[in-house]
Amino acid sequence: MQIGKEFYRAVNWYTHKQCAGAVQWIDQRLLPHRFEQCTSADPEEVAVAIETMQVRGAPTIGAAAAYGLALAWKQDPKSFFIHWLPRFRATRPTAVNLFDACDMMEQAAHGMSSADADRMIQRAIGYADAEVDANMRMGVHLAEHLARGERRILTHCNAGWLAAVDWGTATSGIYQLQNAGEKPFVWVDETRPRLQGARLTAWEMNQAGIDCRIQADSAAAWMMAQGKVDAIVVGADRIAANGDVANKVGTYMLSLAAREHDVPFYVAAPSTTFDAACATGAGIRIEMRDDGEVTMMDGVDAKGAVRHIRIAAQGVAANNPAFDVTPYANITGIFNEEGIWRP
Amino acid sequence: MQIGKEFYRAVNWYTHKQCAGAVQWIDQRLLPHRFEQCTSADPEEVAVAIETMQVRGAPTIGAAAAYGLALAWKQDPKSFFIHWLPRFRATRPTAVNLFDACDMMEQAAHGMSSADADRMIQRAIGYADAEVDANMRMGVHLAEHLARGERRILTHCNAGWLAAVDWGTATSGIYQLQNAGEKPFVWVDETRPRLQGARLTAWEMNQAGIDCRIQADSAAAWMMAQGKVDAIVVGADRIAANGDVANKVGTYMLSLAAREHDVPFYVAAPSTTFDAACATGAGIRIEMRDDGEVTMMDGVDAKGAVRHIRIAAQGVAANNPAFDVTPYANITGIFNEEGIWRP
Repeated sequence: MQIGKEFYRAVNWYTHKQCAGAVQWIDQRLLPHRFEQCTSADPEEVAVAIETMQVRGAPTIGAAAAYGLALAWKQDPKSFFIHWLPRFRATRPTAVNLFDACDMMEQAAHGMSSADADRMIQRAIGYADAEVDANMRMGVHLAEHLARGERRILTHCNAGWLAAVDWGTATSGIYQLQNAGEKPFVWVDETRPRLQGARLTAWEMNQAGIDCRIQADSAAAWMMAQGKVDAIVVGADRIAANGDVANKVGTYMLSLAAREHDVPFYVAAPSTTFDAACATGAGIRIEMRDDGEVTMMDGVDAKGAVRHIRIAAQGVAANNPAFDVTPYANITGIFNEEGIWRP
Repeated sequence: MQIGKEFYRAVNWYTHKQCAGAVQWIDQRLLPHRFEQCTSADPEEVAVAIETMQVRGAPTIGAAAAYGLALAWKQDPKSFFIHWLPRFRATRPTAVNLFDACDMMEQAAHGMSSADADRMIQRAIGYADAEVDANMRMGVHLAEHLARGERRILTHCNAGWLAAVDWGTATSGIYQLQNAGEKPFVWVDETRPRLQGARLTAWEMNQAGIDCRIQADSAAAWMMAQGKVDAIVVGADRIAANGDVANKVGTYMLSLAAREHDVPFYVAAPSTTFDAACATGAGIRIEMRDDGEVTMMDGVDAKGAVRHIRIAAQGVAANNPAFDVTPYANITGIFNEEGIWRP
């Protein structure tokens, strides 16, 4: 996406006269307070970037892993199968894209010699490009739907271009609406605990000049009760064979409120998010994350200095499920690059 | 309530050998990071404590105003009607208890001479004691209900003793369960945007030795889907004649999830919270509050210094309804000091 005069992706392959090849990513932990890109030719640094959520969002994680494994093949092909594949597979537990990307690079590696580094790099680039292309097409399908008058769109978490290499998944439809000359308005759920909505989606909307308001997640049902939400669009971390959707915690609660108020509830996710091996949502493992995400908070003070503060009572533990599962029955439509998908 | 070896109320009348009488209150702005009591014999300082939210929660505010007016009668009876009554009535706009307490003290003053300071003080003490007694009785009714096995209780916001002089409203049932030898467990919704759950309710539970976990508000539905919530108990800011309940934003969304999962949803509020003049929830005006509550955050750094930080993307406005309305149809039971109330 465009920021100022430059075009960026959340993660990308980087080449330059002085550089035989590296992975470049936006450090999303610094956003929205600081925009900074990292570049590294060390696969371990890419793995750490995934683990520490410098890169986040299922499709962006998948692309970062593909690029990281391409780097590994280039620099340390002997350890590719015994070290680097397990290393990348262990970085995050939930996103299916991560495992798909690792499987794809593993299969590719079986047919290549260690001299074939460039072909492995092309595989990774192709994987990321296919993701971006899918997002764009998915956005066009979604925008056709939303253009019927569903202009006040509520979204949860960040299913934006930062999460999905480029365009985004849920936001792709919003960007395509805007490109078609519409004026979408977005209710941005702040998305506790990590505030990806308030930080990343709001930042994206602001960069793109799309009118939006940040709100507490628990205000969503009340805004629906007031008749102020025309549609909900969220992304997905994994979709089971029966259409159950794993996504950021709170998505399920939102779907209950949408059903109560007959607000269309759309999921936008490329077909790579679909996990045929998973029969129903009950089979999806939900990542439990650190207490500190709930009890501590990062931000910047009036002078722009980053501060890490305690916001909750000391000595009390937190319950921090990172995702939840929304049953297909609560979903109006699941969009992928081909249009509406049905289980 | 007991903290260490001492017993405290959120606000109280203070006497001592060297002190003819003063108001003492817990400065709730400092919690949970610091516990500090303020004592003052100056009615203006009590008014400022209400205005600046050092004391908060409708019943606590009412008691503080009654005590402050008793001080005013004792020290400056000539200005009681022309200065002090309007002064206290202007401290906060919403809480019905504030106006009830001022009305009660005004009526009492009409029948008294300036020499009757002690009787005015007894009126204020009686008002606060009646509140505490109502909370205690309400808690006993609620605990009888919860003792049927509903031990994993979820609560939203702070309807605790800090908000209600002593015992609390929603929490009173939890404390009574504990006093009866049960071992309640509490899921504490952090309650964005002001985090009264993570800060005050979690602090209260911790002080009382009650096991609890803080969670993002939007995790509540998922915990219910996992079968890990036996009951929900919340307070109320106002109850309409038909039983609709205005309470902290998010209460409505919580009630939808509770209904979906057949989790009993209880409201605990003394009869003073009922507003017979309000036919239905549609007649309750919902306060819209500052953007800064959503986009900024207070807390303490590792050295204990208080910090005020920006947590959201700069330049994006927020939508901040402070309350919402839960229809009576979503509520399993409304408890007051007499037991279950029906519209």
